[in-house]
Amino acid sequence: MNDKINDGINDNAVRKLFEEKNLVSLATLMKDGSPHNVSTWVDIEDGTILVNTVVGSRKHKNISNDPRVALAIADHNNPFDMVSIRGKVIEEITGEEAEKHIDKLAKKYMGVDEYPGRKLFPKYKRVILKIKPDNIFHMNYSQL
Amino acid sequence: MNDKINDGINDNAVRKLFEEKNLVSLATLMKDGSPHNVSTWVDIEDGTILVNTVVGSRKHKNISNDPRVALAIADHNNPFDMVSIRGKVIEEITGEEAEKHIDKLAKKYMGVDEYPGRKLFPKYKRVILKIKPDNIFHMNYSQL
Repeated sequence: MNDKINDGINDNAVRKLFEEKNLVSLATLMKDGSPHNVSTWVDIEDGTILVNTVVGSRKHKNISNDPRVALAIADHNNPFDMVSIRGKVIEEITGEEAEKHIDKLAKKYMGVDEYPGRKLFPKYKRVILKIKPDNIFHMNYSQL
Repeated sequence: MNDKINDGINDNAVRKLFEEKNLVSLATLMKDGSPHNVSTWVDIEDGTILVNTVVGSRKHKNISNDPRVALAIADHNNPFDMVSIRGKVIEEITGEEAEKHIDKLAKKYMGVDEYPGRKLFPKYKRVILKIKPDNIFHMNYSQL
């Protein structure tokens, strides 16, 4: 077992988990302080973690009320390699940048140029949640 | 897209996600109320969700302080099929039952009869966290 606390987000092994086609789980806080947790697509850029959601979604509402989040990710091909992160949403980005970004994620996860959900739900607007990781915990149980 | 709120935990499609070899992400609350999130093995039994951890682990400490948790799980073979759950830890089980249970999980996830971590860390005791799901949200984006 190899537990490393606070590997930087730019550590190759950590960054690789976010660059590859792995889902992340995003935990946010409900108004009563209880946790909410959901799997979602993820991107990494300049040391921040980007999640793209619908404006007004549960996770968007939650982080607007309290920006503290936690992320869990594991390697799809080696589930013994995993990262746990605590951090905060430091910026919300809407508009054209958020629309282009969901297309980028659709390319990564579905191999298509345009996010198919846009045609199904044309009224939904997108928002990027930009997350600054404060605490990064990288676990690799491959040698177990 | 097919969003269903409060499918029972015994709904076939929901139960299947927990019965198969998928990791779950478990969100718990730190003492300051911020979320913590980590991927872990999971089991389902009689409508409750079972996670097995080391006595004194971060998630064990967190749920002893506040039993509210949230879980995210996605189908390893079809990541568009996912479930998000909010609930509470209603029981902690230690001793022989917890030791046998980690062997059961090692069988499920590694195909071995005995959890290999036991020999590496003989002083670690195990605890089962028994979770009662209060709110189950089943999403299937396969038709996107």
